[in-house]
Amino acid sequence: MRTPLSDLFGLDAPVVLAPMAGVAGGALAAAVSRAGGLGLVGGGYGDADWLDAQMALADAPVGIGFITWALNADTLAQSLAHGPRALMLSFGDPMPFAPAIRDAGVPLICQVQTVAHAARALDAGAAALVAQGGEAGGHGASRGTFSLVAEIVDLAAGRVPVVAAGGIADGRGLAAALMLGASGAMLGSRFWAAREALVADGLVDAALSATGDATVKGALPDAARGLAWPDGYAIRTLSTAFTDRWDGRADLLRGDDAARADWARAMADGDAARATPVVGEAVGLIHARLPAARIMGDLVSQARGCLARGAGLLSHEGADAAAC
Amino acid sequence: MRTPLSDLFGLDAPVVLAPMAGVAGGALAAAVSRAGGLGLVGGGYGDADWLDAQMALADAPVGIGFITWALNADTLAQSLAHGPRALMLSFGDPMPFAPAIRDAGVPLICQVQTVAHAARALDAGAAALVAQGGEAGGHGASRGTFSLVAEIVDLAAGRVPVVAAGGIADGRGLAAALMLGASGAMLGSRFWAAREALVADGLVDAALSATGDATVKGALPDAARGLAWPDGYAIRTLSTAFTDRWDGRADLLRGDDAARADWARAMADGDAARATPVVGEAVGLIHARLPAARIMGDLVSQARGCLARGAGLLSHEGADAAAC
Ligand SMILES: Cc1cc2nc3c(=O)[nH]c(=O)nc-3n(C[C@H](O)[C@H](O)[C@H](O)COP(=O)(O)O)c2cc1C
Ligand SMILES: Cc1cc2nc3c(=O)[nH]c(=O)nc-3n(C[C@H](O)[C@H](O)[C@H](O)COP(=O)(O)O)c2cc1C
Repeated sequence: MRTPLSDLFGLDAPVVLAPMAGVAGGALAAAVSRAGGLGLVGGGYGDADWLDAQMALADAPVGIGFITWALNADTLAQSLAHGPRALMLSFGDPMPFAPAIRDAGVPLICQVQTVAHAARALDAGAAALVAQGGEAGGHGASRGTFSLVAEIVDLAAGRVPVVAAGGIADGRGLAAALMLGASGAMLGSRFWAAREALVADGLVDAALSATGDATVKGALPDAARGLAWPDGYAIRTLSTAFTDRWDGRADLLRGDDAARADWARAMADGDAARATPVVGEAVGLIHARLPAARIMGDLVSQARGCLARGAGLLSHEGADAAAC
Repeated sequence: MRTPLSDLFGLDAPVVLAPMAGVAGGALAAAVSRAGGLGLVGGGYGDADWLDAQMALADAPVGIGFITWALNADTLAQSLAHGPRALMLSFGDPMPFAPAIRDAGVPLICQVQTVAHAARALDAGAAALVAQGGEAGGHGASRGTFSLVAEIVDLAAGRVPVVAAGGIADGRGLAAALMLGASGAMLGSRFWAAREALVADGLVDAALSATGDATVKGALPDAARGLAWPDGYAIRTLSTAFTDRWDGRADLLRGDDAARADWARAMADGDAARATPVVGEAVGLIHARLPAARIMGDLVSQARGCLARGAGLLSHEGADAAAC
């Protein structure tokens, strides 16, 4: 499956691992890269020591992703010194960091949540865009993946590849993204539940039995960690006893040190009910904790099967691919 | 393009016109049916006189859709007397109405917004499900189209066809829906902007120049009409001077008769700034007011082109469609 994205990064499969903060470490990113995709380490809020340690664990070429509003020039410089395969920025204006990334000769990937963000990212010289819909796990905005992808494909007009993110967890979703004009898909939740992800088993177990109806979007995990996210973004997690209990009371949680410590312990120990497993609506499509290589293999073979089945829907008269 | 949906209804194209209340009249529904799709008249809140008049205008077989929580047995009986091609219910429990529809020998289509809704609709004996994502125009809930469709396809497990709705406005979206395992797509916004739709030109003009970023979801149009929608649903419209002005003040609007009358006049006259054009995020993919037949033709030829292009991504080794 060759697309402009796979050409840009030399991929066998047009699949990108979402740079999930603290979750996508070197082992997971390298596993995705080895399986033919683009593995990105989740540099998140810019913990340089964590990043160095994880890059040391990556035994295959990987990229790095950061949360833009939390990034500073020093951390960026330190990460570029690792010679990443790509540098991804998400959630904030990429413009201030674009020159340093360009000067380092590293392709800049910008994850965007609106058409306006996408226009700004193109101005910043992004080499690829990720169109992220609000059904995604983790932080995001409100637009849905379906029309956002097609609209950003129109905006990019073939200048750079567009990757679809949010709600994709299997080969059907990858094939659908390709139909919308995307050059590939970025998956977070599906790889959050990969064997190599830095996630406690208890959290993954809770997710495996949930339907996609069972997520909520809010600010509770940010309140528990004392993070001040900018307006316009919220974090999607599983709905749990913890989110029920604190619903509408993020400000109170921010000031409750004991409750915050309890949440942090539950996240580390995998006590899902007292924590907030960070997954998106695609959780309803995820039924097993598998090695990343197996996830990649299933993704590609199922996507190929869907594309073949789609071709089978065409009558013998054929069709003009230029119409797409 | 033959799918279980087209087999069920004898369609040339697996496309369903959303039964948009007051907007999808007999002329639009018949035009969609004549073009090979399934046209549904928007019976909405159950205005029997309006429905009779619109069914009289339909010069091709069409179905009828209702808003479930607003329906009563008399209106349903009156509509079944028209011998509709299908009866669609959305937004509420279909169970109380299912027996009468079954007894009339009319296929029941249920539009659902969650996996839990879908399970209930299957129990009610739905002949087809429409999985509606929150990016849709008009009323809806919060789950995004992308993962909802695939998850409901899994739930239906081939027993009934699943139709994707929300964010689909062109052939790329139709092809993507098919990849997700849907048997077709239901389009609202794209047909809201059809020539035959009962919508004032000024409203459509405002939509044609908007991006998909420019919608909001809330209760203002319901407040302006004095409608009491149940919890869990909100209505997506274009963001306008009216929605800016009344943002967060739906209750005040409910009591302001002059403001409500002004809104109603603006909707009728097509004064978009003082009104709320009812479209979804797919509005960013809609650039012209076209006859429904042209929309249908473009949809199918573009979808066929996308499917052909998708097949072109498969290497010579081929692929196993059973894997999809
Ligand atoms: C556990 C988790 C952590 C995430 N952390 C980040 C992050 O640090 N930076 C980022 O750009 N995106 C982050 N995301 C969002 C992903 O980049 C991506 O948009 C999302 O996972 C795609 O939707 P999906 O979860 O349905 O696959 C995170 C997602 C998850 C599930
Ligand atoms: C103007 C308008 C009116 C609508 N009215 C109804 C309705 O009365 N009953 C209903 O079931 N759905 C209604 N819908 C929702 C559609 O059934 C459908 O889910 C939606 O239009 C699909 O998303 P799309 O607008 O992105 O195509 C309406 C949608 C629009 C745009």
